[in-house]
Amino acid sequence: MPTIDQLSINLATVREKWDLRQAVEGCARAGISAVAPWRDQVARIGLQESARIIRDHEMRVSGLCRGGMFPAATEAGRRAADDENLKALEEAVTLGAQCLVIVVGGLPEGSRDIGAARGMVEEGLDKLLQAARPAGMPIAIEPLHPMYAADRACVNTLRQALDMAGRLGDGVGVAADVYHIWWDPEVEAQIARAGSEGRLLAYHICDWLVPTKDLLLDRGMMGDGVIDLPRLRGAVEAAGYDGLHEVEIFSANDWWKRDPEEVLRTCIERHAEMT
Amino acid sequence: MPTIDQLSINLATVREKWDLRQAVEGCARAGISAVAPWRDQVARIGLQESARIIRDHEMRVSGLCRGGMFPAATEAGRRAADDENLKALEEAVTLGAQCLVIVVGGLPEGSRDIGAARGMVEEGLDKLLQAARPAGMPIAIEPLHPMYAADRACVNTLRQALDMAGRLGDGVGVAADVYHIWWDPEVEAQIARAGSEGRLLAYHICDWLVPTKDLLLDRGMMGDGVIDLPRLRGAVEAAGYDGLHEVEIFSANDWWKRDPEEVLRTCIERHAEMT
Repeated sequence: MPTIDQLSINLATVREKWDLRQAVEGCARAGISAVAPWRDQVARIGLQESARIIRDHEMRVSGLCRGGMFPAATEAGRRAADDENLKALEEAVTLGAQCLVIVVGGLPEGSRDIGAARGMVEEGLDKLLQAARPAGMPIAIEPLHPMYAADRACVNTLRQALDMAGRLGDGVGVAADVYHIWWDPEVEAQIARAGSEGRLLAYHICDWLVPTKDLLLDRGMMGDGVIDLPRLRGAVEAAGYDGLHEVEIFSANDWWKRDPEEVLRTCIERHAEMT
Repeated sequence: MPTIDQLSINLATVREKWDLRQAVEGCARAGISAVAPWRDQVARIGLQESARIIRDHEMRVSGLCRGGMFPAATEAGRRAADDENLKALEEAVTLGAQCLVIVVGGLPEGSRDIGAARGMVEEGLDKLLQAARPAGMPIAIEPLHPMYAADRACVNTLRQALDMAGRLGDGVGVAADVYHIWWDPEVEAQIARAGSEGRLLAYHICDWLVPTKDLLLDRGMMGDGVIDLPRLRGAVEAAGYDGLHEVEIFSANDWWKRDPEEVLRTCIERHAEMT
């Protein structure tokens, strides 16, 4: 059974009611010892203050969300993305994150060339890695569900992310989020591959609801959907992963509306019983 | 440039305003020479009458939609699905369809075991093929977008469908629908494989809108979205496919509300100019 010390809360899960300070304090009160903040949550409190709050509560940081969004229609746009990614990297280092999570971005405005977008992603990652390697910050490519290929991430399977990581070299791996990969007929084989290649950097959990009413903001709490979470945990453990299980739930009409104390209690219970 | 004699209209595209008779007559008036009906549209008019209407208008039938939906929670449910598939097969034969399109089905009620569901699909297809082969009716597995893995189809990529077809043997191939496969980093390689294995049975077109507002009923008209349709047509042609291009648009809040004459005119124009 998973234990509470393996649990991390992605702070998007409580973002509607709590800022970073409240969320870290809430997690600490609940006995949770790891979080994953988003950059906008950090910016609102300030980077140094966020780092202090996290340190004071002895929170581990399973990842910083997020860098990426590399493709752009213009050279200037791509340079701006590169600069933003260097800032994200600095923040991840300052916060002591275990990795910088990358959502790679989709098609540039007006483009239908997903191959070109994927090329921009790889080029952008290559540049970011020049700075991330000396900083010792692992870069975790998060393949997103294919329904986000156009507008959020044109890297959509573990196989694709691992192929890309293989070409890029050291310092880069994958974040395996069950929501994005549960459907993949190759999911177990590619998780095993990620482990054997030393690239399994993060494990994110939630659930896939039936029906899913919104493409972005209708993720479920573990146990409320159809993902076989024990099977996927078994796969990551068999691949040698002994890191945190990060709960990340975008849920505009359900969990985001609830009392965050209740949300955390439910995360703890469901993580123990249903994953 | 694609020509109008390559165009087929999946009758779901005009289903809100026209029954099968009206749709076939409308297509004939517009100079379109192929259609793909749904079984409920056939049932409403009657099978023999539908076949007569199609014959009288010298329409080719690019496929009958649809068989499949194999997984079920009980043996009785699975037998019922098998029986229903035999009926669909008979209808496809009577209508002179070029193939019976298969949407395989998702998870049985209450199940999280997608591997088991996939096993039920393969078993159901194996049974269906015992009857389809002597009838000379090709069975076209349509991999559906991963966002439908839970509730509509647990076969979600061309690779997976072709692996399954390879195990099943003769008489079964794939329907390649751009909406479901455009995002796949392997799409071109797997289309080429489908061709070289003699399993590329159908090609369906529409477009992926950004944003997509509904998981099921917000497909776009060719040219209104982000799919690189000429590239995918090039891939199927390079794979040796010289069959019909079937337009299938589920669009509750746009195309289904319009005058079907306008919809058909737009299909013809966009097929010629944008695909």
